[in-house]
Amino acid sequence: MKDPIRSLEFKENKLFLIDQRFLPGKFETFVCSNFREAEFAIAKMVIRGAPAIGVTAAYGVVLAALEFMEFPRHKFFSELQKACYILSKSRPTAVNLTWSITRMQSLIDQDSEPKQIFERLKFEADKISAEDVMTNKLIGKIGNSIVPQKSNILTHCNTGSLATVEYGTALGVVRSAFASGKAIHVFVDETRPRLQGAKLTAWELAQEGIPATLIADNAAASLIKNNRIDLILVGADRIATNGDSANKIGTFMLSEIAKSYNTPFYIVAPTSTFDFNLGSGNSIEIEERDPTEITHINGMQIAPNDFNVYNPAFDITPASNITAIITEKGIIKPPFIKNIK
Amino acid sequence: MKDPIRSLEFKENKLFLIDQRFLPGKFETFVCSNFREAEFAIAKMVIRGAPAIGVTAAYGVVLAALEFMEFPRHKFFSELQKACYILSKSRPTAVNLTWSITRMQSLIDQDSEPKQIFERLKFEADKISAEDVMTNKLIGKIGNSIVPQKSNILTHCNTGSLATVEYGTALGVVRSAFASGKAIHVFVDETRPRLQGAKLTAWELAQEGIPATLIADNAAASLIKNNRIDLILVGADRIATNGDSANKIGTFMLSEIAKSYNTPFYIVAPTSTFDFNLGSGNSIEIEERDPTEITHINGMQIAPNDFNVYNPAFDITPASNITAIITEKGIIKPPFIKNIK
Repeated sequence: MKDPIRSLEFKENKLFLIDQRFLPGKFETFVCSNFREAEFAIAKMVIRGAPAIGVTAAYGVVLAALEFMEFPRHKFFSELQKACYILSKSRPTAVNLTWSITRMQSLIDQDSEPKQIFERLKFEADKISAEDVMTNKLIGKIGNSIVPQKSNILTHCNTGSLATVEYGTALGVVRSAFASGKAIHVFVDETRPRLQGAKLTAWELAQEGIPATLIADNAAASLIKNNRIDLILVGADRIATNGDSANKIGTFMLSEIAKSYNTPFYIVAPTSTFDFNLGSGNSIEIEERDPTEITHINGMQIAPNDFNVYNPAFDITPASNITAIITEKGIIKPPFIKNIK
Repeated sequence: MKDPIRSLEFKENKLFLIDQRFLPGKFETFVCSNFREAEFAIAKMVIRGAPAIGVTAAYGVVLAALEFMEFPRHKFFSELQKACYILSKSRPTAVNLTWSITRMQSLIDQDSEPKQIFERLKFEADKISAEDVMTNKLIGKIGNSIVPQKSNILTHCNTGSLATVEYGTALGVVRSAFASGKAIHVFVDETRPRLQGAKLTAWELAQEGIPATLIADNAAASLIKNNRIDLILVGADRIATNGDSANKIGTFMLSEIAKSYNTPFYIVAPTSTFDFNLGSGNSIEIEERDPTEITHINGMQIAPNDFNVYNPAFDITPASNITAIITEKGIIKPPFIKNIK
């Protein structure tokens, strides 16, 4: 058996990331030696996926503490808080980022020594990282209960080892179902504009020999209509307390078609994805990304010069389109307002 | 004012096509000197779009007659019929291809001389070509009646001058609305896998200065949900007598979302797109195209090696999702079964 894929690893005071900008063509490692490099890795999508962003940010705080350790005491604290703030703004939509930074910040205690704080932060980041793997394996096990013995699963974007520390959320359920001997087959949406399905999910599934077929995002709806999909498993970047879920652009479309044709539609995410400050999806900030994600593919121009572009990275799937939310603490069914609590 | 874009032109016994495989990066002409080159142009999508395919095939028959003119009489007829058959099989879904070839074949009369037949065929192909332009302008004028004075129009794939001889169907309505001074703005789906929206529709709109924004196909659904689209205009490759319409993959998805959110959804097509032999869309053959359309973009690999792909080029929009069908003979509203007749 192959070693499991790990998206990130902290060792010798550096954060090593699989550089997801170059998969599947090239397998490269991106090394963060300071918090600015961690910020870059998140903002420029060297690493992506809500849980992986959260863990990268946690290690970003560790790197910041290390960088500022020799600073005068008051400067150590002010620079560290500034780094937390910068890291927390590296991308807007995933709540795991805020969640993780807040958790790290709670350990920055002005009465302690910088070195002590660094060690505490390092311990906490390792814990967040280890928890992520355990959480995902638990999600996989719990989620497997809703996967039929023989089934065609549709998934969108990448929710695998590369979107987390290891194993994945929605793709963790796929892994778990496959490992338990179920006859599954995965339809992978390519997921324009950044093609995380074609580049990352397909790569992960190929590594592990899980039967799968790649499709254009445009082909998903007719597959659903023609009963070729038994269930849909996707991740989430932020979930409001009413169940409304922000996820990769295109997810909402799938959920609408699934609803029209009675195909079960599951959100798979750790409980850290819930934003208890949000009553609904309406106020979730939707990140708009660079127009060149649409006008260029791998650096090659496909659209006319200077053409106007609208490039939202996420959309909101209303709770009413979701069959259930699969978490490490169990499967949450509607009514979500009551059951998420 | 600029010259209008013309996708094809027959002169000096050759068919000149804008090579749509290289737009918007390169403007190249593809010259067909024999019917095999016309078949290649259709099959390999040098030219595409149901009406343009129909006219190219008609000129393909003309080229065949020219090629075989000096053959012994019986061979002239047998080879010409064989060429008609080969051209009719160059792509499966668009009915205009069958319609056009059948119309040409009706002029192949065994009692006439090859030269006479060639001239008759040439005259007929020129007529089909001229009719296409007139038909589109009429469609544009009729269709303009349903476009609000100020509106955001969503379109999919390319239905413009490049999909026809000139002017276009759904994009012809856009041209007509713009020319009549309406404050329109077009959202252009990039239309994976072949990116006809990004490469061709965007190029046509940019040529004429029509305000437009390019989006990933995945972004359309949330725009519709958020009331940012006033109407949707798409083309068709084959329409059954109950109104079910085959069109570019992804069209069905748009129609479903439009229905859920009460956004008017129009099919725009000449009456030659109706297949009166078909009672419903169920028996329309859906072309599956090369996996490399998904795994490669402009020749660059984006997915892992040897990954399984499903690549349908079209899907079926059920009549129940269609607000009306705009043709050169008027706007057909439901009930389609009655009104199409």
